[in-house]
Amino acid sequence: MTRVTAKKAEPAMKVTLEDLEPMTRGAAFLGAGGGGDPYLGGLVARAAIEKYGPPAVIDVADVPDDALLITIAGMGAPTVMVEKTLSVEAAMIAFDALEKHIGKKVFAVLPVEMGGLNSMVPIALAARRGLAVIDADGMGRAFPEIQMVTYHVYGVSTTPMVISNEHHDCILIETRDGKRAEDIGRAIATQMGLNVMLASYPMTGRQAKQSAVKGTLSLARGIGRAIAEVRRKGDPVEVLLGYLRTTPYYNKCAVLFDGKVTDLRRETTRGFAIGHCKMAALDGSGDELEVTFQNEHLVARVNGATRTIVPDLVCFVDRETGEPITTEGLRYGQRAKVIGTSVAPNMRTPEALAVFGPKGFGMDEPFQPIEDLMEIKP
Amino acid sequence: MTRVTAKKAEPAMKVTLEDLEPMTRGAAFLGAGGGGDPYLGGLVARAAIEKYGPPAVIDVADVPDDALLITIAGMGAPTVMVEKTLSVEAAMIAFDALEKHIGKKVFAVLPVEMGGLNSMVPIALAARRGLAVIDADGMGRAFPEIQMVTYHVYGVSTTPMVISNEHHDCILIETRDGKRAEDIGRAIATQMGLNVMLASYPMTGRQAKQSAVKGTLSLARGIGRAIAEVRRKGDPVEVLLGYLRTTPYYNKCAVLFDGKVTDLRRETTRGFAIGHCKMAALDGSGDELEVTFQNEHLVARVNGATRTIVPDLVCFVDRETGEPITTEGLRYGQRAKVIGTSVAPNMRTPEALAVFGPKGFGMDEPFQPIEDLMEIKP
Repeated sequence: MTRVTAKKAEPAMKVTLEDLEPMTRGAAFLGAGGGGDPYLGGLVARAAIEKYGPPAVIDVADVPDDALLITIAGMGAPTVMVEKTLSVEAAMIAFDALEKHIGKKVFAVLPVEMGGLNSMVPIALAARRGLAVIDADGMGRAFPEIQMVTYHVYGVSTTPMVISNEHHDCILIETRDGKRAEDIGRAIATQMGLNVMLASYPMTGRQAKQSAVKGTLSLARGIGRAIAEVRRKGDPVEVLLGYLRTTPYYNKCAVLFDGKVTDLRRETTRGFAIGHCKMAALDGSGDELEVTFQNEHLVARVNGATRTIVPDLVCFVDRETGEPITTEGLRYGQRAKVIGTSVAPNMRTPEALAVFGPKGFGMDEPFQPIEDLMEIKP
Repeated sequence: MTRVTAKKAEPAMKVTLEDLEPMTRGAAFLGAGGGGDPYLGGLVARAAIEKYGPPAVIDVADVPDDALLITIAGMGAPTVMVEKTLSVEAAMIAFDALEKHIGKKVFAVLPVEMGGLNSMVPIALAARRGLAVIDADGMGRAFPEIQMVTYHVYGVSTTPMVISNEHHDCILIETRDGKRAEDIGRAIATQMGLNVMLASYPMTGRQAKQSAVKGTLSLARGIGRAIAEVRRKGDPVEVLLGYLRTTPYYNKCAVLFDGKVTDLRRETTRGFAIGHCKMAALDGSGDELEVTFQNEHLVARVNGATRTIVPDLVCFVDRETGEPITTEGLRYGQRAKVIGTSVAPNMRTPEALAVFGPKGFGMDEPFQPIEDLMEIKP
């Protein structure tokens, strides 16, 4: 995949089959424990691209100001989505219903989040519909709730939005508030089995330019490539950190912990996969890590001291291969390294933190950037 | 209120303020323990009529075959609706959204059920919108679930349907199956506090003629008038039964029990008011009645033997005044008579019984008409 740069009159670049493996692997890292299984995500996109051809990829900057973009994503609990695969059919029902309701032709498909599944759903849908996919999303990571995106933070209405499944149940929701959309949508998704498709945040090109986190499909692919290189170049985590330091968003990064899982609590409740993971250090220091999650990891504490907190990223990787580990993949006794990174600047503004900072998750603790908590020098 | 008979070129008849008290009282009787509080229903209709004038009432037979009708009803648990009054504003949001989605002007408002509240919601909405209300509904009684109407039984699609509340949350639902519409709608209504408005079953005049239970607003008013007369004419229940025997649907009727409440169990769960009521006979015979309910009464058993079962009506009335008692009005120690009646013939067909006969409520017992169970002679 290469960005379309219209000015240079290059042919439009495509998401090819070769892009899928690094892109899903990188998106799984950015999923911060959530965002769904990258293997399943890759399968869904592969099937669509093999049958319908690779979709074009477009920079946000190249979208006309008045063009209509619609986001598409799977909604539910990753723990359920492992057991029942995604339906591109359902995605099309939701997407088409929202397009019809708005009464205007959609210009391209916009991702909501990076994650093993939701980086791929827009690509699969774009392939099926012969549309381009935008190289951007609403967070540059994954988050559990519908309103937890920069689109919402910077003034794009969450609704009208449509929830669908493969049984042709199709629900159009209009609310005056993004959190109400989440509450109602979550009740519907729970009733429908926590595995549905959501078309939401219809917006103009102008709105996307003002609110999106840009270039994130490309960044996911870059991270995935770095992890693949790792296998040839020695310490996998050092190679990965080396790449992250070159990125515009994830450049403040550190290994938070190196340990094995000693305690794992995971419930599928209130429409989410909620729980915590505790680890003991492998170096015999007696240090302990605790990570809590709501689909995605929220905060990492070592011996009780916060080391990284939302919206900054907390990511588990296999200590031998650098492969990302999602919360549903965590196992008792597993050995892993935990990495923390910074996120895009528009994810750390006061208005963004009000939505998906610690308070957005009910934590009575201020956001502190990882570079302060881990004393990372610029 | 008098029916509009277009052929005689009489002026259209109206639901006047004077009609409201008998109509809500009769509808509360037909509510069979459910259908909401008639006092609240009357208040809502009164406020709308006082401000916007009385709506016209039209027979189903006088609706043009291709005219669009939409039903409107409150949805939730009566136990909740007692505590938070209905919002005609919400009804208008739902109704207008469905009309807009269909893209055709609505001809008149169609009731879904008779009950203290849902007989009045269409009248209040018709007054507010300057539309007529149809003298018919989808059961001639009340039932707890969306698909439990003759409209559904005789081929009218439940969806598109819209759920709204006064906060301008507005949810448009399309499913391929009425029970799915109920399941999804119930989840939404529960999330929204079990007190929402539902616009559903958009249909043509032709479909209404084929599927409705006709003349039920008039019948509700007749029953209410009979109960009011009661107070002057001696045994209230005998006067009420005398009137019921003159009606086309409720003419097989009997007193099932005369007793006092000895046990009352009522939970608001799964989005319904569910429970049972037990009574001991006042005549010292030791006889016991048990009535189970899901918003509405489902079955009355005396000493374990079934005396009346859905869709036939089981209704509690005050033994001194004949006033209908809803399940949320039942109290320990209360003295009441329990009346059973037949229902409209199109409510007792095999296809109707498959939806709201005993099996529709999970009871492993065949429907038997009250005239057989109580040996009522024709």
